[in-house]
Amino acid sequence: MQYFEDVVIGARRELGAYTFTAERIKAFASKYDPQPFHLDEEAGRKSLFGGLAASGWHTAAACMRVGVDSRRRAAAAAQARGEDVVAGGPSPGFKNLKWPKPVLAGDTVTFFSEVTSKRATVTRPQWGLIFVLNTGENQRGELVFSFEASAFMARRPRGN
Amino acid sequence: MQYFEDVVIGARRELGAYTFTAERIKAFASKYDPQPFHLDEEAGRKSLFGGLAASGWHTAAACMRVGVDSRRRAAAAAQARGEDVVAGGPSPGFKNLKWPKPVLAGDTVTFFSEVTSKRATVTRPQWGLIFVLNTGENQRGELVFSFEASAFMARRPRGN
Repeated sequence: MQYFEDVVIGARRELGAYTFTAERIKAFASKYDPQPFHLDEEAGRKSLFGGLAASGWHTAAACMRVGVDSRRRAAAAAQARGEDVVAGGPSPGFKNLKWPKPVLAGDTVTFFSEVTSKRATVTRPQWGLIFVLNTGENQRGELVFSFEASAFMARRPRGN
Repeated sequence: MQYFEDVVIGARRELGAYTFTAERIKAFASKYDPQPFHLDEEAGRKSLFGGLAASGWHTAAACMRVGVDSRRRAAAAAQARGEDVVAGGPSPGFKNLKWPKPVLAGDTVTFFSEVTSKRATVTRPQWGLIFVLNTGENQRGELVFSFEASAFMARRPRGN
């Protein structure tokens, strides 16, 4: 399993991809963000977005989904190797959510996670804190989403 | 209609409330955050959350939903008074998303929006920038969600 000590700064992982079909965009928007440009092609075309656009929270939720799936695959692979799997610790929160370009119907966004820094924590010596930049790029390689996260990770036990 | 000049710092608006039923928690999680403590009561009870817990992104999406509904009601009321309604400008992004306490099945979260500061923009004289703290409180008045947003608002045209 991976401990805080194993985390390499600058390491970038591809989490997976999510295709924003018109159906998925409208299904999310009808429940959580029912603005016309998220619900209707014509309203989207007439908007600043220039097309049926995904809610920004849909993009965030899609990033979560591919992240969960990615962790699940990694955990399954670790278990197949006979290694222990320990879930990550709680996240203190997220910073600087940005949606620099719209996500339109038909776009496929690939999400990445990059470790930007890490530090030991004085108050919780069994944990370290890692800082991660999560990003999403569309099929043209354009940045459409980013946010910064921090998370606690278990320190390697002495002797391991 | 409301212009940048009309915005009062410290003004706090109640946007509305959203009840996190077990059904809603599982419906969101099954699509966007399929972790056991968001999908299953027993797994939730055994987790740090102590019960079936809403995904943090579900809480964010619910805040969006009550915000959209609130703006829609305000726009309808303004139209009924014969006033023009102008949609807000684009948001440059969000900061400091926090989930200080879990949202559990059965909780009702009331969302609020408070203007914390505002400033004129030099590069876009027809717009001003307002800074808003959005929060969610459960039925016991405990803070369960917060984030900071900024948004452009139209300046009042000269002579109005």
